[in-house]
Formats: sequence, structure tokens, C-alpha cells
Amino acid sequence: MEGILMPLEQKSSNIWLTEHLSAGETYQYLISKIITQQTSDYQDICIVELENKSKALILNNKLQPTTFDEHMYFEPFVHIPFIHFKEPESILILGAGEGAIAREVLKWKSVKKINIVERDKLIVDSCSKYLPEINKGSFKNSKVKIFYKDVNSFISQDDNKYDVIFYNLQDPLLEEKNKINFNKKLLLDCKSLLNKNGLMCLQMGDSPIKKNELFIEKIKLMKSIFRSTKIYSSWIPSICKNLSFVLMNKDKLIESMPFNDVDMILQRQLLDELIFVNAKTFIGLMNPPKYIQEYDEVG
Amino acid sequence: MEGILMPLEQKSSNIWLTEHLSAGETYQYLISKIITQQTSDYQDICIVELENKSKALILNNKLQPTTFDEHMYFEPFVHIPFIHFKEPESILILGAGEGAIAREVLKWKSVKKINIVERDKLIVDSCSKYLPEINKGSFKNSKVKIFYKDVNSFISQDDNKYDVIFYNLQDPLLEEKNKINFNKKLLLDCKSLLNKNGLMCLQMGDSPIKKNELFIEKIKLMKSIFRSTKIYSSWIPSICKNLSFVLMNKDKLIESMPFNDVDMILQRQLLDELIFVNAKTFIGLMNPPKYIQEYDEVG
Repeated sequence: MEGILMPLEQKSSNIWLTEHLSAGETYQYLISKIITQQTSDYQDICIVELENKSKALILNNKLQPTTFDEHMYFEPFVHIPFIHFKEPESILILGAGEGAIAREVLKWKSVKKINIVERDKLIVDSCSKYLPEINKGSFKNSKVKIFYKDVNSFISQDDNKYDVIFYNLQDPLLEEKNKINFNKKLLLDCKSLLNKNGLMCLQMGDSPIKKNELFIEKIKLMKSIFRSTKIYSSWIPSICKNLSFVLMNKDKLIESMPFNDVDMILQRQLLDELIFVNAKTFIGLMNPPKYIQEYDEVG
Repeated sequence: MEGILMPLEQKSSNIWLTEHLSAGETYQYLISKIITQQTSDYQDICIVELENKSKALILNNKLQPTTFDEHMYFEPFVHIPFIHFKEPESILILGAGEGAIAREVLKWKSVKKINIVERDKLIVDSCSKYLPEINKGSFKNSKVKIFYKDVNSFISQDDNKYDVIFYNLQDPLLEEKNKINFNKKLLLDCKSLLNKNGLMCLQMGDSPIKKNELFIEKIKLMKSIFRSTKIYSSWIPSICKNLSFVLMNKDKLIESMPFNDVDMILQRQLLDELIFVNAKTFIGLMNPPKYIQEYDEVG
């Protein structure tokens, strides 16, 4: 990475980073400025400015949602489970990321405590310093506590209880090769940390439009441990993907909610305006295309 | 185009076509086989096989939705207006395309007559011959009549009446440069061809996530002529876009419909199974993200 991105600042850039969406598709984006570029014990961390003036984090050569559209990722990730839970108080975030999950969580009046587990202190420090537009200082909020520990060992030892757990690490499909985090033990540990009707939510990568066996296998695993699951998705233009989220409830069925109830919850809870989610959006996301519905029906 | 795509068949291809999504983003896809490549009086028409074995039409170097995912485009395009109209009988399609709109229209029991207007006979002939997977012979169905004429002059002279009109030409935003088809006169002519509560539906290109003045201007134009409009969108992976559709009703408000009513309409009407749309999907598409809702509220 350091070799490719050498010129730290130049007026007219011609640095195109290429991502391989599949064997027959690539996506390239122009980097106009490299803001910081560091290597931690765990990953390459690069923060850049893109041609459209948005800023973005690049982890191990993978572009993350940018300041142009990160709300299309983080708002559905956080607010859909929160609407379902209604009055979330105690939250666990596995993987600090840019700090945007904590930022969205802090928009809810009922939230009292946020624990973040992150093994890589450098990502928190870099994003705090170079991506304040995204985290809005959330890492320093008094409700937030960051534990610099390995996620799997943290959750097997933690004795707190949570209403909602966000799994914000590399998506389980990509992890398949090195099997680092996402497995049956992790799901069981998370479940044991949840309060009654507690929810876990994770991101599962691009929504597969053709039957995807690995995706189905992961959904089946989640269903075997949690009482119910619900898949929804959001299209993120900057990374050319329709990302899917899986919501899991420990004790009860995840059911549709009437528009007026959702609207009332949001009105009562929100301390700050949202750009992407409102009651209508909630209804929309809970009613996905048929091929997504079918993943909900496996197993 | 002919120069670039010369090798008509080769075992291991390295032909990558590049599309510029924006000044700072490109999307490249690998073409494994060129099936046909012709130039008509109006456009370059190329039908190819892609690396993932799907087949696709390329018009003037622009990839159209492929056999891998075209249902994610054509199903919402056709079935959303049809559900709203309930019992469509007489249909006008402006622009023949691959024949997929006619194919979807023919899935509805109530449909009696489909007129297609297309100035370019070569696209109908090429797609009939080389993309039967997409059109399923719809151009030859006895309910279908193709008029090889200029769209604007056809609609100003036609004395038929229609329940639903599909505008399947280049999207109005791309047309801005050469102002060929989409203007006030076209909308007025279409409106005058519609039966009571008749609907017109068109595709408006990538859904702009930041306020887009040209997009707003077009919506305002449609609102000034039709009684109501409704925007919905569908993510099409093969072209990396979340395409937006605008539905217009001549006489009444386009309102939400209860799940059970939609489900009953589909059960009564459909002669063939759908992959993407069902009653749930309809509810989902009618409740888009907040930024899409806001385009509906302009003017």
C-alpha cells in the first residue's frame, strides 16, 4: 500500500485504486489526496480524499463508505435494530471503525452506556484525528468506553448485559478464508450477553442476488442460535454494493411494526436529525425484494 | 466500438470495457465473447457474453442490465404501475429495448393490446435473434404490434387510448445534452393518450443521493402536467446503479395500498411467476429512503 500511494499530496492526482468486485468486474476510484497512511499490527490504515471531495477510510486496500454516503450505511445499521428494541439503554459495539456507529447510537435519548471493543488502537486514534466529520467526537463521549482487547476473548469474559450488540468487524463472508471472528462460539457468547428480547446486528457484505451457499450457511447458523432473524439491505454508491444486514433477536420474532408506532418512537427518541431513515424508510427496509425475503426463509 | 471489440470469439478474453460512473469513478467489466456487433442509423448495438456467463446488450458503449439481473430492472418497472392500475388492458411502450418490458406486460391476464414504438428496427431484429433469453419471443406475440416510427411524431398522431405508457428510451437526464425526446410536449401528448387514471412510467437513471437540480427540474415538469408522481428505485448490480423510476398518474393521487389488496391483485393477474416483485416488495418500493421521498415532495 505504501508503495502505491506514495505521493502524499499532489495537485492533480492520477492515483486510481482498483477493487475487484468479481472475477469479471472492477471498480476504480480516483484518490486526490492521501491524508494519512499507517500500518498497525493488524492492518493497513489509510485516510484519503476522493475526487468528489469526500473523505474515506481505506482498510487493507478496501474502501469503506465515504463521507459522501456513510449515512446510507450507518443509519440503517443502527436505527433499524433500535426501532425494534424501542428504548435501548446499554450497547456493545464490536469493532470501533470510524466511530460512526457510536455517533448514531448517541442520537438516542434512552442510551446510557456504550462499550466498544477494538483490538487496534491505531484505527481509533487515526479516525479521531483525521475523520472527525464521521465520528463527531463520539469516541470521547462520556457514555462511551473503549476496551482495547481482542473481541472474542472480551465477549467470553464480559459480565455486562446489553440491549443491542453491533458486530462491526470484517463481514463473515470475507472472513471465511481465515475464520478469525465469526463462528458459533461468538454468536453464543453474544447471545449470553443480551438482555431479554436483546438484538444483535451485523453486516453481511453484498446482498447475493443468486442463491449463495455460504450466505445461506451463515444465516442458518444464526437461526440455530437466535429465536429469529431478519435481513435488510442498503445500497452504498461509493463502494458499488447493496450491503445486507442481519438482525437477530434472542427471544422473540422480529415482526413488522405499524408506521405510526415507528414514527412515535423516532420522535420521542431522536436527539438529532437523520438523513436516511424515517418511519417510511423503516417500512421500506422491512419489506425487501423477494430474493432477500427468501434468505429469511431458509433453514 | 468495432475497433475495440474486434476479436469476435476468443478462448481467454482480456477485453475490459470501461464506464465512467463519475469523474472519479470507473466501472470495468470483462467481455468473454462478442456475439454480434452492428451499427444502425441510430446507435451501436452490441450483444456480448460477460465473464459470469450472463448475456448483455451494449448500446453506444453503455452496458444495459444483463441476463444476470435484468429482472431487478424490468419487474419493478412494469409491475409497480400495473399493481396501481389493477386491471391494465391497453399498453404503449416507447422504445422496444430488448423486449423485456413487453415480456413482463404479457404476464398480466387483463392485458389485451400492446403497441411498441421503435425507430430502430435493427435493435428489435438483433435482440430477437441473439437475446431470446430476455425477450422470450415477446415481439412476436399476437397482442404485440410494433410501429417502426419516430416516438415523438407517433404520439402526436396516435388516436388510441392506453391504460399505462412506458417510456423506455434513454433516460431524460442523459438526454439533456441533445434534447431528443423528453420534453413538455411529449408529456402532454402522452397524457392525452391515457385513459382515466392512466399511468405513465419512466426510468430516470441513477438515484441522486445529493440534491440534483436537473433531476428536480424534470420532476417539477412532470408534476406540472400530471396529477401526481411517485418515485421508487431498484439497485441493479451489473451496472452499479440504483435506478430510479417515476410513476405519473393523470387524474388521481398515487397512494399506498394495503398488502392484502396487492397480494390479491397479483394472485388474480399473474400468468407467470416473478423473481423480484411480490406484495411485500411493492410495499418496500413504495417506502423508499428519506432522500428519495424528498424528491417526491418538490414543487
